[in-house]
Amino acid sequence: MNFASYISGFVDGEGCFSVSFTLRAKLKTGIEVRPSFSISQNKRNYSVLLEIRDFFDCGSIRFSKKDQNYKYEVRSITDLVKKVVPHFKKFPLKTSKQKDFEIFAQVCGLVLQSKHLNKAYLRKIIEWSYQMNKAGKRKHLKAKLLSVLDKMKR
Amino acid sequence: MNFASYISGFVDGEGCFSVSFTLRAKLKTGIEVRPSFSISQNKRNYSVLLEIRDFFDCGSIRFSKKDQNYKYEVRSITDLVKKVVPHFKKFPLKTSKQKDFEIFAQVCGLVLQSKHLNKAYLRKIIEWSYQMNKAGKRKHLKAKLLSVLDKMKR
Repeated sequence: MNFASYISGFVDGEGCFSVSFTLRAKLKTGIEVRPSFSISQNKRNYSVLLEIRDFFDCGSIRFSKKDQNYKYEVRSITDLVKKVVPHFKKFPLKTSKQKDFEIFAQVCGLVLQSKHLNKAYLRKIIEWSYQMNKAGKRKHLKAKLLSVLDKMKR
Repeated sequence: MNFASYISGFVDGEGCFSVSFTLRAKLKTGIEVRPSFSISQNKRNYSVLLEIRDFFDCGSIRFSKKDQNYKYEVRSITDLVKKVVPHFKKFPLKTSKQKDFEIFAQVCGLVLQSKHLNKAYLRKIIEWSYQMNKAGKRKHLKAKLLSVLDKMKR
């Protein structure tokens, strides 16, 4: 068994690359950008999440009482750029999730360089991110985020 | 990328090992036993199913208009025993689906040897199979199948 390849197969089914946005009046940009890589599993599959966390050597696992699931999640931008993204470049996904990953990798790169603090880049990040995970629910309408963005000075 | 390991990861999330039963008055046993290995995907992921079918060199893919999914499925007992089961013995699953697979492998072995035509074995096959895929829906209640079985002469 090649565990690295197994993980890409497993994530192709079960994993999620997402970029979420939170309105934060105190931030200069008004919008917080948060890329996240996660895998949720029923509690009976806790051990596979542990193995995956050990493999990536980053991220954390937490339990959700609500849905009786464990969620493995990596939010640290350094870990995402240095550990998670390179794995999926070396062992690519084969489903449509590959497109999500490609956007995700670009956004992570920009966030690491703090480009998301720039209005033009942040607009791009929002536009790209709303192309991801089409079936998923969004907290904010894209139009709402872009209108917040328009109020930024630079 | 090691595609064999990728497949085990993908199937751990997306695959299904099942044993279904159909009442058939014309059969001596009254009950048809049908093991099946399948993977369903949204139509946008058709290509990964093609790659998996080519890898296993058996099974077929069909489209379901109802849910706009493609389903790759292997039903041939010879293919299951000679191609599918050996793969997952060599590249084991890591979630609770491994338990389903172990039952599935045993049932396939018995069906290949026509043991399911024997009342005692068929009872075992029914009991084991109803331990699989706990969340899934069953067409027949186990009690119903066992009562049909009780009417068998041998």
